[in-house]
Amino acid sequence: MKTVYVDNNATTKTAPEVVNEMLPYFSEFYGNPSSMHSFGGEIAAKREDARAKIATLINAEPEEIIFTSCGTESDNTAIVSAIETRPDKKHIITTRVEHPAVRSMCSTLSEKGCRITSVPVDSKGRLDLDYLYDSICDDTAIVSIMWANNETGVIFPIEDIAQNLADRNVLFHTDAVQAVGKVPIDVKKTPVDMLALSGHKLHAPKGIGVLYVKKGTRFSPFLMGGHQEKGRRGGTENVASIIGMGKACELAAEHMQEEAAEVSQLRDRLERELINKIPQSIINGDKKNRLPGTTNISFEYVEGEAILLMINQFGICASSGSACTSGSLEPSHVLRAMGVPYTAAHGSIRFSLCRYNTIEEIDYIIEKVPPVIERLREMSPFWKQGV
Amino acid sequence: MKTVYVDNNATTKTAPEVVNEMLPYFSEFYGNPSSMHSFGGEIAAKREDARAKIATLINAEPEEIIFTSCGTESDNTAIVSAIETRPDKKHIITTRVEHPAVRSMCSTLSEKGCRITSVPVDSKGRLDLDYLYDSICDDTAIVSIMWANNETGVIFPIEDIAQNLADRNVLFHTDAVQAVGKVPIDVKKTPVDMLALSGHKLHAPKGIGVLYVKKGTRFSPFLMGGHQEKGRRGGTENVASIIGMGKACELAAEHMQEEAAEVSQLRDRLERELINKIPQSIINGDKKNRLPGTTNISFEYVEGEAILLMINQFGICASSGSACTSGSLEPSHVLRAMGVPYTAAHGSIRFSLCRYNTIEEIDYIIEKVPPVIERLREMSPFWKQGV
Repeated sequence: MKTVYVDNNATTKTAPEVVNEMLPYFSEFYGNPSSMHSFGGEIAAKREDARAKIATLINAEPEEIIFTSCGTESDNTAIVSAIETRPDKKHIITTRVEHPAVRSMCSTLSEKGCRITSVPVDSKGRLDLDYLYDSICDDTAIVSIMWANNETGVIFPIEDIAQNLADRNVLFHTDAVQAVGKVPIDVKKTPVDMLALSGHKLHAPKGIGVLYVKKGTRFSPFLMGGHQEKGRRGGTENVASIIGMGKACELAAEHMQEEAAEVSQLRDRLERELINKIPQSIINGDKKNRLPGTTNISFEYVEGEAILLMINQFGICASSGSACTSGSLEPSHVLRAMGVPYTAAHGSIRFSLCRYNTIEEIDYIIEKVPPVIERLREMSPFWKQGV
Repeated sequence: MKTVYVDNNATTKTAPEVVNEMLPYFSEFYGNPSSMHSFGGEIAAKREDARAKIATLINAEPEEIIFTSCGTESDNTAIVSAIETRPDKKHIITTRVEHPAVRSMCSTLSEKGCRITSVPVDSKGRLDLDYLYDSICDDTAIVSIMWANNETGVIFPIEDIAQNLADRNVLFHTDAVQAVGKVPIDVKKTPVDMLALSGHKLHAPKGIGVLYVKKGTRFSPFLMGGHQEKGRRGGTENVASIIGMGKACELAAEHMQEEAAEVSQLRDRLERELINKIPQSIINGDKKNRLPGTTNISFEYVEGEAILLMINQFGICASSGSACTSGSLEPSHVLRAMGVPYTAAHGSIRFSLCRYNTIEEIDYIIEKVPPVIERLREMSPFWKQGV
């Protein structure tokens, strides 16, 4: 059976070009970049090439790029560093729709005496900016707001927020894991202090992340060890994956614009046809400000998990909410924050596309999903009550 | 020019069998193991296969194995978890010869109110066990002692220590990064509470680590995020590297005994010949209890860095001290703790062998190194004064 993978916000295929770049660094050029001999030293030069490519994608300077093991580590590092370097400040502002990497760390810090403000969103997932700005006080150490939401694809006005926060003596961190490589990001134009990236969301492998830290930002390392990353992150560098990350960012920089246009066309086709064919289906999130490849659709009165299992039998791989929160039967915290009714939130499916998806795949989904929803609704007592 | 790589305590070649196992998990089976669809779920099963193989190597249970990004993260996690889960205890016991992953974290915690005891070693690098046991008090949260030293290869009596600590209400963590895969480790026979492993020291790739946590040990996660690793480590799992780590551990379990014999023969030949050919050269560390492939030799009155640069011209890759502390011109903290005189500590070279080294390579080193030392000594004013 064929696999139609439309779960790219959960993870992506490592681009074959990326794997090719990585391969020599496992068994051939495997030195430790911290070693004094040239077998290691030459690898340090390759690591720096990768750093420069990543910096280019977001218009940063190479020395502002710190390698980590994943987006979660980058987010954790940013928030903990803000609290460590500003010991007199105990207030963190974030949003009700952040990724668990930010939410979990904030919740841990709240147990240790920090105060957390979670900015609400409206029914389209748009941030309440007045609430955000009104929440800032002398005690605020950091504002952490994602660039784009992983479940709905809604993009927040990070540039406006960054400009507004610029002279308010708070650090501004953005989890840009879902945005990097999909929409243009320029840290010179959008003056954030810290920004988190994850390799496996942009066709680099799993197990590599990046934290951008603006020059001059006071910083405290999270992983403590050797002198790697100029003392900013201990642990032997994940050389092959760093090189893969560099290649993935180079590819993203080259193709982003054209890809975004293609992917959003496919997404729009999918969305339009599913909405047309399936009554009482609702698109969640602000359609005007979304990632090109993401759509989150609620099919009322059915269970998302049941939909996923049935479309899985046709090889269609999608998601209900975030993969990182799977295992929980609670409806998504993102949709709850948007006030999506229970009957709709439970039946929401995220389709997240990438450059490898084809129109044939989209049409296959358009063919297979509507009968699945119909069958499930026939079995649902809620559906019969609802209509 | 050929490369003779004898810096395997810094990092190792990823075994070709390991790379082969990893390869399908980049661009073919790239799903997120947390996903509900079978494309992700099947990968979760592969991840569990790897976990079982790793557990087998150290005679642990699979559920006692937590995947991390590196040895440093594993060490950091163990120590921080002990302090977090025992908030009434503020004392940490470690040694003067630990890896920076332990030393840096201890030094950070000492700034936050923890008290650190660093157990000394004797001139052969052997731990002062009386000092260790006398240091334990009601306030001691954790004892963290490496299984084998990365610079000298000296093996500590971890089994004796574990037995002694078993009923003293302290957690016992061991950084076994250099030992795993080289000497037998059985966590049932040696009842440690936590044990750190690193992939790239045993022919798995860089960027993967493991923390063993004994069942029943109170645990606090270090990386906070999604529900991965049963809530014990956030962040999407580094699937390909996890699978590689499983294969590397399987290979180690199969071949450890025979390899240890071969590698120690090569090491002994190298050591014997260099000592014979080069006057005033001294082996650092307890020859009776050492890793099979490690030798640390001081060539008095010459600079280690100069030796490394000159043998590098013959393609010989070795190390002076730890790669993780390179960039510093201070002599190794390990040799200083052993009381190695300044004139010898500065001229110490670590050769660390692995199963890929051949007798031809060893003989090449035996041929090339003595004239290098002789030439450097001819240029050294200290040598002339010394003789």
